[in-house]
Amino acid sequence: MLLARDLAEDIRARRTTPRDVLNECVLSSAEQEGDIHAFQTFNLQACREAVADEGLAATPLAGLPVAVKDIFDTAGLTTTYGSDFFLDHVPRTDAAVVRQVKRAGGLIFGKTKTTEFAFLKPTDTCNPRRLTHTPGGSSSGSAAAVAAGIVPLALGTQTAGSVLRPASFCGVTGYKPTFRLIPTVGMKVYSWHLDTVGLFGARVADVAFGAGAITGRDLDLADADITPPRFALVRTPRDHLADAGAHAALEAAVRAATAAGATVTEIDIPVEIEAADAAQPVIQNFEGALALADEYDRELLSPMLTIHLREAGTIGAEAYDAARRTSKRARQRLGDLFADYDALLTFAAPGEAPEGLDSTGSPALNRLWTLMGTPCVSVAGLNGPTGLPIGIQVVGRFGRDYRTLAAAAFLERAISG
Amino acid sequence: MLLARDLAEDIRARRTTPRDVLNECVLSSAEQEGDIHAFQTFNLQACREAVADEGLAATPLAGLPVAVKDIFDTAGLTTTYGSDFFLDHVPRTDAAVVRQVKRAGGLIFGKTKTTEFAFLKPTDTCNPRRLTHTPGGSSSGSAAAVAAGIVPLALGTQTAGSVLRPASFCGVTGYKPTFRLIPTVGMKVYSWHLDTVGLFGARVADVAFGAGAITGRDLDLADADITPPRFALVRTPRDHLADAGAHAALEAAVRAATAAGATVTEIDIPVEIEAADAAQPVIQNFEGALALADEYDRELLSPMLTIHLREAGTIGAEAYDAARRTSKRARQRLGDLFADYDALLTFAAPGEAPEGLDSTGSPALNRLWTLMGTPCVSVAGLNGPTGLPIGIQVVGRFGRDYRTLAAAAFLERAISG
Repeated sequence: MLLARDLAEDIRARRTTPRDVLNECVLSSAEQEGDIHAFQTFNLQACREAVADEGLAATPLAGLPVAVKDIFDTAGLTTTYGSDFFLDHVPRTDAAVVRQVKRAGGLIFGKTKTTEFAFLKPTDTCNPRRLTHTPGGSSSGSAAAVAAGIVPLALGTQTAGSVLRPASFCGVTGYKPTFRLIPTVGMKVYSWHLDTVGLFGARVADVAFGAGAITGRDLDLADADITPPRFALVRTPRDHLADAGAHAALEAAVRAATAAGATVTEIDIPVEIEAADAAQPVIQNFEGALALADEYDRELLSPMLTIHLREAGTIGAEAYDAARRTSKRARQRLGDLFADYDALLTFAAPGEAPEGLDSTGSPALNRLWTLMGTPCVSVAGLNGPTGLPIGIQVVGRFGRDYRTLAAAAFLERAISG
Repeated sequence: MLLARDLAEDIRARRTTPRDVLNECVLSSAEQEGDIHAFQTFNLQACREAVADEGLAATPLAGLPVAVKDIFDTAGLTTTYGSDFFLDHVPRTDAAVVRQVKRAGGLIFGKTKTTEFAFLKPTDTCNPRRLTHTPGGSSSGSAAAVAAGIVPLALGTQTAGSVLRPASFCGVTGYKPTFRLIPTVGMKVYSWHLDTVGLFGARVADVAFGAGAITGRDLDLADADITPPRFALVRTPRDHLADAGAHAALEAAVRAATAAGATVTEIDIPVEIEAADAAQPVIQNFEGALALADEYDRELLSPMLTIHLREAGTIGAEAYDAARRTSKRARQRLGDLFADYDALLTFAAPGEAPEGLDSTGSPALNRLWTLMGTPCVSVAGLNGPTGLPIGIQVVGRFGRDYRTLAAAAFLERAISG
C-alpha cells in the first residue's frame, strides 16, 4: 500500500516528486483496475496538468493523489452517485470536501465506485485481498483503491457502516471523524443526521495526516503522543453477530494492547446507549425516504432500493421523533462514559469479507456508533481464519478526534509489534 | 391576501376548484409581477396540467399553488440560487420539500427570487406594501408573493433572519419550524447547522395548515386549541437595535395578549443563552466559507459575497468549535426556560421595512433564535409609524411546533381583536 504520510514527507524532502507518485499510482491502476473495478471515472489529465505546478510539494497534501467516492459532486467530472439515472451527470461545482482536498494540494485522481446512493446495491468492485470476495460497501471503490495500492488516500462516507466495514474487509485503515468535522455539502444526501464523510489510508498515521491536511486541524500524529490509552472493551447484546474469527481478532487486539501497556477494562454497554442501536435504522430509513423521494416517485431507483424505501416511507413522524430522542439520551450517556476511558474497543465488522459480490456485508456492528456521531477508526493488522483481514473498531469521544486517532495508532502498533 | 386554509376548505366543499384558485393566482400575478418582481421563474404550464386531475381536491393541500424560493432544486425547472453562475441551471431532481409539496397535492407555481445563495445581495423584488421599500431577504420573492396575494403559500429558508424578517416587513406570517422539521435536502447549502426551511402564509392558521399538509404532522390548528398561553417578554442587550416603532409594536402586542387573557412575564435573557448570539455569525461564516468554497475559489461570486467570504475564511476551527459549544449550552439553558413559559415574545425585525432596495435589512434580532433551532413565528397585524407592517416574533420550544403555532395564533387574534 502507499503510505500517505511518508510519501508527503518524501516529496517535501525532494526524495520523490508529485509527478513520480502520480505515475506510480497510474501504473498501479493500469495493472490492477481490470481485476478490481475500483473506479467509476478517472481524472488523470487534470492530475498530469496539476503536477506541473512547482509549488505543489509545499502544500499540506504535497500533491498526493486522492480518490473520491462517487457520491461527492466534482465540477466538470461525471458524478453518478452509483445510480443509472445519474450516469451522465456532470455537476457544476465541487463538493466542499473536494474543494478542501484541492486547497490542501491534493490531486483528484478519480471517482470510486459506490453502491447506489451509498446504500446497499453492490458494485462490481472486488476485494484486492481476494478477488472473489466483496470489498464491503458502500465506499467499495475507495477502500479497494487504497488496499490495492492505487492511491494513498480516498474519501468515503458512512451512514450505517460504509467506512468501517470496507476498511475491515480490505485491511486498510478507515476513519469516520466526529459528525460534521468534514462537511457533507455537495454529497448526495441519504440521511442528514447520519451521513458522515470519512477517509481511507494504509495506516492510522496516514488517515490522521490526511484529515489534518484536508481540514486544517491538528490531527497529524507525532510519535510522542501515542501514549498507552485507557480502553474499555465494550460488550453489547449484538456481539453474537460477530463470528468466531472476529471474536478471536478482538481478543488478540486486547492482549496486544494490554501487553503494550494499555489498560483494557471490560464493560457492558449502558442500556441507554444500546437503546440507540434500534433507533438508527428508524432515522436512516425515515430520512432516506424523504431524501430520495423524488427518485422514488419517478421510479428512478433499482428494485432493491425501491422495495426498501417503500417500507421506509411508512415510518411515521412520531416513531422518528422518538428515535431522535433516544439518540440524544444515548449521546449524553456516552459522553459520561468517556470520563473514565479514552476509547472503546469493539468489532469493526462481523468477520472476514463474505464471499461473492452479491452483498457488501452487514453494518449491524457499526450503526450505533454512526448514530452517536463519535470518531471511529478501523485498525488493520489482524487476519481471520481464512487469511482475510479483520479490523478492530476504536470508538472515541465526540469531538476528540486527535485522542481517538492516537489511541488507534497505539493499538495498531501493539498489534503489529 | 389568499387564505390557504380557507381556500383548501372551499375546494373540498366544492365552493371553488383548484383550477379557479390557480386562475386567480395567475391573474393576480399578471397584474402585479411587473411592479413587484417576486418570481425568478414561473411553472404555469405544469400547474394547468395538474389541475385537470379530479383527485386533487381530496389531497392535503387540495391543489393550492405554492411558490418555492429559488434556492431549492426543482427537476426540469431552472434553479438559479440567486446566482448568475446558475442562471441556466436545471436540476435533475426535486428538493425533498418540493417533492413533499407535490405529494401533498400542492402545485409548484414558480420559483421566487432569492438573494445570491440566500445571503445578502438584494434582488429587485419590491415590498408589496410600499414598492419603494425592501421586502427583506433572503426569501424576498416568497414573502412578497404571499403579501401581494399572488399565492397562498410560499417556501423560504432562514440562516440568520431570512424568514422572520421579510415576513415582518411584508405583513405576512413567517414560520420557521424546529430545525430540520422540514428537510433541507436539495437546497443550496450555506450553513448546515443553521439553514432552516420555513413557510409564508397570510395568517398563522395558514402556515400551520401548510406545514401540517407538507410534513404529514399534526400542526393544523383547531380553534379550540388556542388557549391563553404563558408568554415571557424576553429582554436582551440587543433590544436597542429595535427602533421606537418596533418597541411600540411589541408593547401593543403585550397589552393585547394580556387583555385577551394571556400571562406575560418580563424576563431578562439568561446570559448563557445571550452568549450564543455572538456564536451565530461565527458558525454561519465558517460554514458558508466551506459550503461556497468552490464558487469562491473559481471567482463565481458577486463582489459583496466575495469580500464577505474572504473574511469568513479566516475563522479558525478553534473559534468555530468554541461557538458550537456555546450554542449547545445555550440550547440546554433555553430548554430549561420553557418549563415556565409556552413561548417567548420578542422583535421579529428592527422596525418597518427600510426604504430602497440596496439592503434587505438587518437580521440582528433573529440570529440567536435561528441558532437555537427553535420554532419561530412572525405574527402580523401591527403597523409602524409610517404605516408599514411590523411583526412580533413568537419563539417556542424546540420540537414543540404545535404549541408555538397555537401561541402565535392566540397573539394574532388578540392583536386583531
